[in-house]
Amino acid sequence: MKGLFVVFEGQDGAGKSTQIAALKAHLESCGREVILTREPGGTPIAEKIRELLLDRSNAGMDAACEAYLYAAARAEHVQNVIRPALERGAVVLCDRFLLSSLAYQGFGRQLGEDTIRNLNALAMRGVEPDCTFYLSLDPEEGLSRIAARGEGKDRIEMEEMDFHTRVRKGYLHCASKDSNIHLLDARQNAQTVTAQMLELFSHYLNPMIEK
Amino acid sequence: MKGLFVVFEGQDGAGKSTQIAALKAHLESCGREVILTREPGGTPIAEKIRELLLDRSNAGMDAACEAYLYAAARAEHVQNVIRPALERGAVVLCDRFLLSSLAYQGFGRQLGEDTIRNLNALAMRGVEPDCTFYLSLDPEEGLSRIAARGEGKDRIEMEEMDFHTRVRKGYLHCASKDSNIHLLDARQNAQTVTAQMLELFSHYLNPMIEK
Repeated sequence: MKGLFVVFEGQDGAGKSTQIAALKAHLESCGREVILTREPGGTPIAEKIRELLLDRSNAGMDAACEAYLYAAARAEHVQNVIRPALERGAVVLCDRFLLSSLAYQGFGRQLGEDTIRNLNALAMRGVEPDCTFYLSLDPEEGLSRIAARGEGKDRIEMEEMDFHTRVRKGYLHCASKDSNIHLLDARQNAQTVTAQMLELFSHYLNPMIEK
Repeated sequence: MKGLFVVFEGQDGAGKSTQIAALKAHLESCGREVILTREPGGTPIAEKIRELLLDRSNAGMDAACEAYLYAAARAEHVQNVIRPALERGAVVLCDRFLLSSLAYQGFGRQLGEDTIRNLNALAMRGVEPDCTFYLSLDPEEGLSRIAARGEGKDRIEMEEMDFHTRVRKGYLHCASKDSNIHLLDARQNAQTVTAQMLELFSHYLNPMIEK
């Protein structure tokens, strides 16, 4: 793959959108093609699956069903958006990817990390992020930021605090095992986070320019 | 499990609905609780997934995405309908189950039988059909019966003949390996098929009455 696959992770309210926008601006100023996308979603069919997943009327959805729906959306997304973009040399910036499934379904829903990893193998088609930024924040802080924005909670955000605490532990556990997952302290102001993110990112972009 | 899980398989047009109705009437005349259900579907969320799967506007759906969506619907269905019914001793009559996924996605889409079986393990939760009736018919004959009914084709039925031929081979392959999958020649008239089906079924019901 000639391109670079960069994923932003963290709970809603942690500032993913702000940091994605900052990296996009930086890359475009370097003349790179940037694809900005998100999970679940990114294709018309995957966006329909997203609606099913986040719709509050689907409260009580079976945990395994939920895990399969995320994988279904991911299969469409990798096949039709991410892989073609990487093959032509673009930088793909993606809001959430497999790590979200590991944290939310593997740990939050307690289906297990290995179960979720194995279940997603067919969807991934060998595509793995080159670099992941995890915007690290306590669940309470993220949820209060969403409340302050005046946004309604989706089906996942409505879960009780124990669930969000398990998700947080899942993120930290996975990050501790993978040197390409970088923690950014999301309690800092956005400009500080951006500066740290761009510094970490420079190690991925520089070898790329030599390709 | 105290109940009995009976699955009807075969392409649309093969006569599954007629035979399911005949078995339901027979079982109710014996005083059994009968649950009549179908895949994909059987719960509100699974029926929404069914709409996604059969909607012709979703032509071009990735094969892996399709396989995950069937598994997602199955997880909901097993957890909320099939397993509770079997636990309380009901007879569950289901229009399609895992064998459809093996035939359509494993063989028709060529994802492979083992891939589909492994992918569905989480959805199945150890629930396997006690008895499956495969209404065996050439694809051409089934499609011409659907056309004669004046029904529109769904997304799967719209596939080219090569696809339907692979599905047919998949059914025959799986049936040849499993003594609890019974072939019924669906070219015969419906009454003849019913008589053969009830005769085969009597071997499952009799030991059950002794439970």
